[in-house]
Amino acid sequence: MKIDRVGIVGLGLIGGSIGLELQTKGYEVFGLVNKSKTAERAKERGLAQVISTNSNILSNCSLVILAMPLEQLINPTSELVSALPRNAVITDVGSVKKPVLEIWQKLHARFVGSHPMAGTIQTGVEAGRKHLFNNRPWIATPVETTDLEALDAVRQLVVTLKSKWITTDPETHDQAVALISHLPVFISTALLQTVTKEPNKSLLKLAKTIASSGFQDTTRIGGGNPDLGVAMASNNTSALLNAITSYRSSLDKLEKMIETKEWDQLKSELSASQLSRPDFL
Amino acid sequence: MKIDRVGIVGLGLIGGSIGLELQTKGYEVFGLVNKSKTAERAKERGLAQVISTNSNILSNCSLVILAMPLEQLINPTSELVSALPRNAVITDVGSVKKPVLEIWQKLHARFVGSHPMAGTIQTGVEAGRKHLFNNRPWIATPVETTDLEALDAVRQLVVTLKSKWITTDPETHDQAVALISHLPVFISTALLQTVTKEPNKSLLKLAKTIASSGFQDTTRIGGGNPDLGVAMASNNTSALLNAITSYRSSLDKLEKMIETKEWDQLKSELSASQLSRPDFL
Repeated sequence: MKIDRVGIVGLGLIGGSIGLELQTKGYEVFGLVNKSKTAERAKERGLAQVISTNSNILSNCSLVILAMPLEQLINPTSELVSALPRNAVITDVGSVKKPVLEIWQKLHARFVGSHPMAGTIQTGVEAGRKHLFNNRPWIATPVETTDLEALDAVRQLVVTLKSKWITTDPETHDQAVALISHLPVFISTALLQTVTKEPNKSLLKLAKTIASSGFQDTTRIGGGNPDLGVAMASNNTSALLNAITSYRSSLDKLEKMIETKEWDQLKSELSASQLSRPDFL
Repeated sequence: MKIDRVGIVGLGLIGGSIGLELQTKGYEVFGLVNKSKTAERAKERGLAQVISTNSNILSNCSLVILAMPLEQLINPTSELVSALPRNAVITDVGSVKKPVLEIWQKLHARFVGSHPMAGTIQTGVEAGRKHLFNNRPWIATPVETTDLEALDAVRQLVVTLKSKWITTDPETHDQAVALISHLPVFISTALLQTVTKEPNKSLLKLAKTIASSGFQDTTRIGGGNPDLGVAMASNNTSALLNAITSYRSSLDKLEKMIETKEWDQLKSELSASQLSRPDFL
């Protein structure tokens, strides 16, 4: 099927970046946003050719990308749902897939769940930029009922954006992001809390003075956007809790080795970690 | 007291960097190393004016910096101890201070414990570089028996190296580095292990594919030098175990909020973390 008119709902980091990139590839892009102030700024930045707060602009799109925050994606307005053309391919960019599919499978016959793995530090209408998806994984999670033509249309779009197309089932996706993306946020937050809750004030002051790149890197994502952290936890709860449970078991084993002074075993664990890390780079 | 001839035992990252810097400030620097091959390379790199494997070169030094690995520092050879001039000021650069002082207080009357907080990724004779200490904290840990003239001589040296001079007691130092530097290594290692020990192979493969900067930053120090990790754990055991205990309590509380879906409370914890992090930058 031919896709030439693409709608994007939400023009933040992901939506705005898709809009900028697709325009350079000859697509006609229609951006739907919530606030007129956002629409103004998105127009100034050229995030889409047509930008509006009126969902009617989606009516002639052959593909619509739902790029709004996860909470809005999971609780879509009836106005949005009815504005989506019945024949259009619909996809999303949400960071969890099971809860999204549970809702959207029922709402649209041509919905395809997907998740681009691209940087997410900046947010909002200023954040979109070209080349965000270059060479990054973009995971689609087809299920039994997924329309295969719609899936292929999303694949073509993803290839156009120069992302690496990957497919898996929603459960595997959600467990993988729990381990790789959601768990790190909470273990990093717990580290920040451990230090800031230190009751000895002179020790806390010294700790702040001597913190260097090791502490800074390990706490970077724990010091991130609280709404994003809550969205991860509330939408991927069981996978995240499983990940925390196996994390605690790893930490307990290391602690045991330290308590019992099993330095040879500790060294072999640390060596295995050192060897494993390049697989994640 | 006037310090003009400085001995450095070990010319790795810290010792080599001190050697390079002090020479530019007009000091005469004598470097003692273990192996003749290291001596050769240290000479080529100009890490000191006089470099030898013979500890006699320390005989005319007015200050000696013990910059060898922690294990050697804590188990010094009798040859080294007898080569240190009785009148010289002796200091070290070890990352824990209580175990070092327990040994060295007895071995030399003018010993001053100290610890420069400077980058430690590279090691060995190639690692030393100028300006390593610029504006970095350098913590001295005087105790009741510390010679105050010796302490002042170390302070002058540290100021010359452009580091920030800080003093505290050895216990506070060791607890602060346990929190800021040693704990992060083990929580980061546990994260790597949690993922690599995932039994579902297709999930593990996907996890490796989607790992991005968040996971990479959080695991950086867990994928570091295993000997350094073991040295931290074996020489700062009780402070590290205390830190792990309070870390687990922080993580347990976050887990409880996720289990019981207390999203408002979780958000306020994440917000507090976000606000606290700039204090450590």
